Amino acid sequence: MSATIFDAALTTSEMAAAFDDAAIVRAMLRFEAALALAQAEAGVIPADAARAIAGRCRAEHYDLAAIIEEARSAGSVAIPLIKALTHSVAQTDAKASGFVHWGSTSQDVIDTAMVLVTRDALTLIERDLDDLIGSLLTLIDAHAATPILARTLLQPAQVTSFGLKVAGWTAPLVRSREHLRSQQKRALALQLGGAVGTLSAMGTQASDVAKIMAANLGLTMPAAPWHTQRDQWVRLGLEVSVLVGSLGKIAIDLALLAQAEVGELAEPSAIGRGGSSTMPHKQNPVAAMTALTAAHRTPHRAAALLAAMGQQHERGLGNWQAEIAEWPALFLSAHGALHALAGAMRGLRVNAARMRENIEAQNGAVFSEAAAMVLASGIGRDRAQVLMRQLVRQAATSAQPVESMLLAHVHSDNSLSSRVDAERLRLAFDIDAATALPAQLARQQLQLLRDALGRGED
Amino acid sequence: MSATIFDAALTTSEMAAAFDDAAIVRAMLRFEAALALAQAEAGVIPADAARAIAGRCRAEHYDLAAIIEEARSAGSVAIPLIKALTHSVAQTDAKASGFVHWGSTSQDVIDTAMVLVTRDALTLIERDLDDLIGSLLTLIDAHAATPILARTLLQPAQVTSFGLKVAGWTAPLVRSREHLRSQQKRALALQLGGAVGTLSAMGTQASDVAKIMAANLGLTMPAAPWHTQRDQWVRLGLEVSVLVGSLGKIAIDLALLAQAEVGELAEPSAIGRGGSSTMPHKQNPVAAMTALTAAHRTPHRAAALLAAMGQQHERGLGNWQAEIAEWPALFLSAHGALHALAGAMRGLRVNAARMRENIEAQNGAVFSEAAAMVLASGIGRDRAQVLMRQLVRQAATSAQPVESMLLAHVHSDNSLSSRVDAERLRLAFDIDAATALPAQLARQQLQLLRDALGRGED
Amino acid sequence: MSATIFDAALTTSEMAAAFDDAAIVRAMLRFEAALALAQAEAGVIPADAARAIAGRCRAEHYDLAAIIEEARSAGSVAIPLIKALTHSVAQTDAKASGFVHWGSTSQDVIDTAMVLVTRDALTLIERDLDDLIGSLLTLIDAHAATPILARTLLQPAQVTSFGLKVAGWTAPLVRSREHLRSQQKRALALQLGGAVGTLSAMGTQASDVAKIMAANLGLTMPAAPWHTQRDQWVRLGLEVSVLVGSLGKIAIDLALLAQAEVGELAEPSAIGRGGSSTMPHKQNPVAAMTALTAAHRTPHRAAALLAAMGQQHERGLGNWQAEIAEWPALFLSAHGALHALAGAMRGLRVNAARMRENIEAQNGAVFSEAAAMVLASGIGRDRAQVLMRQLVRQAATSAQPVESMLLAHVHSDNSLSSRVDAERLRLAFDIDAATALPAQLARQQLQLLRDALGRGED
Amino acid sequence: MSATIFDAALTTSEMAAAFDDAAIVRAMLRFEAALALAQAEAGVIPADAARAIAGRCRAEHYDLAAIIEEARSAGSVAIPLIKALTHSVAQTDAKASGFVHWGSTSQDVIDTAMVLVTRDALTLIERDLDDLIGSLLTLIDAHAATPILARTLLQPAQVTSFGLKVAGWTAPLVRSREHLRSQQKRALALQLGGAVGTLSAMGTQASDVAKIMAANLGLTMPAAPWHTQRDQWVRLGLEVSVLVGSLGKIAIDLALLAQAEVGELAEPSAIGRGGSSTMPHKQNPVAAMTALTAAHRTPHRAAALLAAMGQQHERGLGNWQAEIAEWPALFLSAHGALHALAGAMRGLRVNAARMRENIEAQNGAVFSEAAAMVLASGIGRDRAQVLMRQLVRQAATSAQPVESMLLAHVHSDNSLSSRVDAERLRLAFDIDAATALPAQLARQQLQLLRDALGRGED
Repeated sequence: MSATIFDAALTTSEMAAAFDDAAIVRAMLRFEAALALAQAEAGVIPADAARAIAGRCRAEHYDLAAIIEEARSAGSVAIPLIKALTHSVAQTDAKASGFVHWGSTSQDVIDTAMVLVTRDALTLIERDLDDLIGSLLTLIDAHAATPILARTLLQPAQVTSFGLKVAGWTAPLVRSREHLRSQQKRALALQLGGAVGTLSAMGTQASDVAKIMAANLGLTMPAAPWHTQRDQWVRLGLEVSVLVGSLGKIAIDLALLAQAEVGELAEPSAIGRGGSSTMPHKQNPVAAMTALTAAHRTPHRAAALLAAMGQQHERGLGNWQAEIAEWPALFLSAHGALHALAGAMRGLRVNAARMRENIEAQNGAVFSEAAAMVLASGIGRDRAQVLMRQLVRQAATSAQPVESMLLAHVHSDNSLSSRVDAERLRLAFDIDAATALPAQLARQQLQLLRDALGRGED
Repeated sequence: MSATIFDAALTTSEMAAAFDDAAIVRAMLRFEAALALAQAEAGVIPADAARAIAGRCRAEHYDLAAIIEEARSAGSVAIPLIKALTHSVAQTDAKASGFVHWGSTSQDVIDTAMVLVTRDALTLIERDLDDLIGSLLTLIDAHAATPILARTLLQPAQVTSFGLKVAGWTAPLVRSREHLRSQQKRALALQLGGAVGTLSAMGTQASDVAKIMAANLGLTMPAAPWHTQRDQWVRLGLEVSVLVGSLGKIAIDLALLAQAEVGELAEPSAIGRGGSSTMPHKQNPVAAMTALTAAHRTPHRAAALLAAMGQQHERGLGNWQAEIAEWPALFLSAHGALHALAGAMRGLRVNAARMRENIEAQNGAVFSEAAAMVLASGIGRDRAQVLMRQLVRQAATSAQPVESMLLAHVHSDNSLSSRVDAERLRLAFDIDAATALPAQLARQQLQLLRDALGRGED
Repeated sequence: MSATIFDAALTTSEMAAAFDDAAIVRAMLRFEAALALAQAEAGVIPADAARAIAGRCRAEHYDLAAIIEEARSAGSVAIPLIKALTHSVAQTDAKASGFVHWGSTSQDVIDTAMVLVTRDALTLIERDLDDLIGSLLTLIDAHAATPILARTLLQPAQVTSFGLKVAGWTAPLVRSREHLRSQQKRALALQLGGAVGTLSAMGTQASDVAKIMAANLGLTMPAAPWHTQRDQWVRLGLEVSVLVGSLGKIAIDLALLAQAEVGELAEPSAIGRGGSSTMPHKQNPVAAMTALTAAHRTPHRAAALLAAMGQQHERGLGNWQAEIAEWPALFLSAHGALHALAGAMRGLRVNAARMRENIEAQNGAVFSEAAAMVLASGIGRDRAQVLMRQLVRQAATSAQPVESMLLAHVHSDNSLSSRVDAERLRLAFDIDAATALPAQLARQQLQLLRDALGRGED
Repeated sequence: MSATIFDAALTTSEMAAAFDDAAIVRAMLRFEAALALAQAEAGVIPADAARAIAGRCRAEHYDLAAIIEEARSAGSVAIPLIKALTHSVAQTDAKASGFVHWGSTSQDVIDTAMVLVTRDALTLIERDLDDLIGSLLTLIDAHAATPILARTLLQPAQVTSFGLKVAGWTAPLVRSREHLRSQQKRALALQLGGAVGTLSAMGTQASDVAKIMAANLGLTMPAAPWHTQRDQWVRLGLEVSVLVGSLGKIAIDLALLAQAEVGELAEPSAIGRGGSSTMPHKQNPVAAMTALTAAHRTPHRAAALLAAMGQQHERGLGNWQAEIAEWPALFLSAHGALHALAGAMRGLRVNAARMRENIEAQNGAVFSEAAAMVLASGIGRDRAQVLMRQLVRQAATSAQPVESMLLAHVHSDNSLSSRVDAERLRLAFDIDAATALPAQLARQQLQLLRDALGRGED
């Protein structure tokens, strides 16, 4: 079937291909071929039957539309596909057709197929995650000492450095990379349990068949079939969701900093990128939009995975089917977001001058904590805070700099000037001085991130 | 693009077609044609330009794959489509091409297109909802007096009638029908606001253009553009979600009653329906499965719609895009569920004998409240409840009928037999007597439902 | 028990009281009293027993902590409460105690109690919703003609009026008011079904008892018990969710416009309001924060209600219990958000000068569509759009006004100056001229909203 | 404030206490004391000031209700608490009061307090998880060879062993134990960043202060403050959600097997446990109910955590506040579920006879795959499946055993009897023979689980 055009525009063509009908059917047929060949190797079915089966396991032999139509009443895509495969094998080798899908079950083939296509999907994600991380590391390096307003609750707070801000974006991505790697080792596991998880129809060779299959498909051999115990699989989906959450954090910061009134960042400009159907001046932050869209949608997919965990007995009714159907959207969204942000960060336009202007436009108010700290050592923090609050308010009304008002105030009051070091006060309002500490932290973080990536490569 | 094969198998081909790429592009082009023609009628653009534009508004002229590809960087499907349309018009009428999409905006065309395809989707839903309700009314009628165990917290409770149970399933569907009808009147509204909701580029004729378009497209004329005020639209999506919730309730009851150990209901049997890829005896409840899958997935879609409501300023960044992309799945799931249950209920196999056996297998325990009520009038409720609890436990251990144990107990105790009417006690254990009241309620409900449907038709 | 301190700070003390333990127990006892009195009136139980029962239906008689403790093993709060009530009645009137909760069931008392406290909660919501709407109408009126940047995808788009923007905020609230009113009529319904929804223990007087109770409690008499058919109840919860969604839209706009770099709006300032624990200059948008928090949380509650609809048979296992437990948070969040925004809008600080400055800071770029429209009539839209895109880009680089660059360009090019009316071009860049249309729309909307409110009062 | 009585009944009193107002305020004060003492140790503030501050850091000194009231306008619970603490310190030591909360920020104290109470919560969870796992291991051991129907899509499938089924329940819990342990090491980290994450007010000693605090509080020292980078924290919440998902799986199986018509399991019986307010015979599965309720609610909490990840800049507006407020419910639900199931499994009533009867009641149909496999070796799988489907259907109609019908059929057909081993056919229908393989798998799983637990202890 065709999903809406909107989904397609929010992902990449590569990821769309990873989960399209043909890819899933190919993976299902890959399972059936691997099953037959492993069974032949373990002596469960004749070798020539296995070869005959494997020979028909190619998606182009089958009519997907007809299979989907039949799946609606069969209750599973596997049933009509296996029927069609059996029929196809029978046309050249009637005996071999009797060994198609031998001792396995619909859920084995569907779950393993999902594992196989998910592995491909994760390769795409890792590639673009590395790309994005690379661009961010470059930004940290370049802007370790670039002052920028730190903002809390969407209000100016203090000065930090843009490099440190980017380091904050990057660290969760490096952690996601590590968590995704370790969790996929656990979750990309063969599903082979037969009708009820006991592989009863394969007798004593069951375990051998599974091991051979897992090895041939390059999948983890699980301690037991996981038909209705989906925790490791769900954890993998949740890891992707956490990644999208971290991308959403980057995207919201990017979108806010790209507001015209802020003007500190802009996505790369290109023909046909972020324009409007009617307004010639528009430069929409399309990468941020794509990532934010993913961040809006993904938590609900994660909830669906978790809500589907209560699968009844040896195969769920409705919940397994829901989980499988929800799964691809996680990856479509994640890769759309990742790819968009990787592109945006590669060509990010950083307006360091505007960052400084926005700090200066605060007229010194964002240094009020720093100034209060200096005052506090002389007059106690309570008096210091009250004084600063007063001055900040007066400064806002009179549009005068807080610094000069404060220095004048201190100068005019002997009890103050005797206890407070005017030079330290002046320094409290210095943008570059305020950036020294965040710059140092940014460089430390950069080193930590590089170290972590290095460890991850081992 | 192609969504997963699993989604396709869980909906109908009709609903899949209602939201496929071509349908949405057709609806977008229908908007552009209607816009141009209305603008011509209102004197905003030349009539021949409008005709030239309308003449190119056919989906088959455009390359959907290329449009999707371009949409990824443009940030909207509308932009490349309008570009292609403009280009196409220009090939025959350069001047007319300057009037394509005149004064409108991407969101106008996308929102209105979604409204148009949603109207088609609702027609499918209403048709199958009526079909399902029809089958259920027949079941109420046929089984008004068929005794069945009522179960609470998945434990036997008392006797009710199967007809009354079905009436419980039906009433919410009749209410959904009414709510869907009234909400779609509000929500299937034209979107036409231009760049920021003021239709500034259409001048004083803006309102006329909108009215003509709404009339021609058969849509509600809203009080104002609803670019970032999505409440009526979200309510419509939530109504569909409520419907799916009510279908899920039917499906879980059906699945539970179809368990082999219960055996009171079965879905219709047919070749290729609900079989297993490996177990010859399997008869899986495929309709229940489809509806339960929808019920698992839909609440998360509803949450996504609600979470997307905080759309910034005059057009949202990420949330509008998320809402539009989430929307179709609501209808795909709903129609899959509805169609499956309509089929199941049309041919539902009701095992009234088994319903009675399951009551009898309770050995009278489910009449303990009724018996306690009779006893209570003689010995007070507290003593009555204590006595019944005791007897039920003894009966469970000894596998004897509660009724005979109770009668023996009463007979053996003068203080009891003098105060309690043995005949009324006996009657408390009579299945058919217990069914009389629910049967009467079922018939009352049937009449109420028919009346409500009749009113709905006015 | 005590929820976290964080929940408490995000709602009002009034709403917290509406759903606290004592309020719910009071409502449960109110049900029991009403049940007994109605049963006496209908002749089901003796009148003096009813009076004795009603006399003990006061929350202060009972040990809530002990009841909660017992509820954990009983599986329901109703069971230990009814036990305690029965015991309490028995101490003065042993016979009457036998008639406590006669023929009813745990779910009857709990559901009806939730209906009763929800009615109180809705009264609070309606009060503050009216308050908020009132403040917003005043703002529309005052600022119908105040120019403000319209922003799409978080980028400057065109000029609109602040009054029209506020009208956009208001309309969904007026609709919510109407929908809440009509839906509460349907959903605030008595629950009285007895063990399995048949009221079997009350015999032929069952219907009379229910009608008397509904009338005495001021509740709707439903067509049937709704133990496992929760659609009308869920719709009410969803209506509250839609309201929160609309409040979230206001809150995000408010928060964005209150950014220091935008500076167009500010929440009212007050001692202790929105300060920081460390930064003297901070003025955090606390009302926006509270409403945004509610908007973040509520969609997940709505999903929980919908997901709980598949309640098995005649009483659900786990889903009913989940729904009841999720319910209050909807109202706690909604009222916290509503109350906070009502306060913010009552004293909203509107900086109209800054609104104009922010438009002017765009250097005319936001008039590019308007200018292109004027040009288009002379040189076709394609050329017009290309030209405007070029000029906007040059203007951004050179920091010159788009208007003067455009006029110079037109002047220098005969093919242009001959076809384009320079005066109309100039007008396209006039802020006040651009505000005329939105001002008119704002006034129309204001009238429509007042009319709708007037109708709502009928 | 008081949450609803319903929440309280669905958790344990221990977990309710872990997150109650007093516990959180205690943890916040513990942060303030640790901060002051660490700052004294690092030479940032005077030692006697630190002692004076630490001396007032006791929850009983403060009026929680007043703090909550003030928090509503302050926008944070930390602000009024720190004000009250400062005031309290000032009463005995004015100078020391100036050093309260020195250089820190509201989010530092709130996040760290949540970490501290969460650590306590996890201790409770680990304790009861171990208890539950212990009971389940005993069940695997006792019932490794107890035959039970495996059911797929809620229909009888084949024979498995109850021990193997329990092993399926247990493995995810053992995995959750391991994942929770490793994730809490990462997530239970100190939060100390000061106003914007740079600890600017603490100068060069900032890092020392943080290390001393982390060590003293027994918390992980994070690579950087995590004010708006919540991934590790969210992962911990998701791990709890996965645990609840796995508990929900156990609960649904338990509830289904406890249905009267199935009758294979029952929760332990006790006075006041699982009774009904009206039906004397009721034995409701209260533990299953509690766990299912948790499983219904928790996915929506997980979604809320994920959706809150897009926290703007250096402190979020609305999303951080939402996350903190959502967090406790995860643990309340999880511990309620865990404690209930631990109790149920400790005294689980297993009806092995009924398990066998339910298999026998299938009349051999559940052996149809096994029989078909035997037949297949003689006549090919297609013919075998067709034959078995036919016989199963005839058996269902005639209520005769499939086995005897099949043997008769084979006997009567020479082409069959010559190719099929009747003895192997008979064995295919033998319950105990069918249980041998699952029994062996159950014992293997038991060993694997014990090994995993042993490794976990290292």
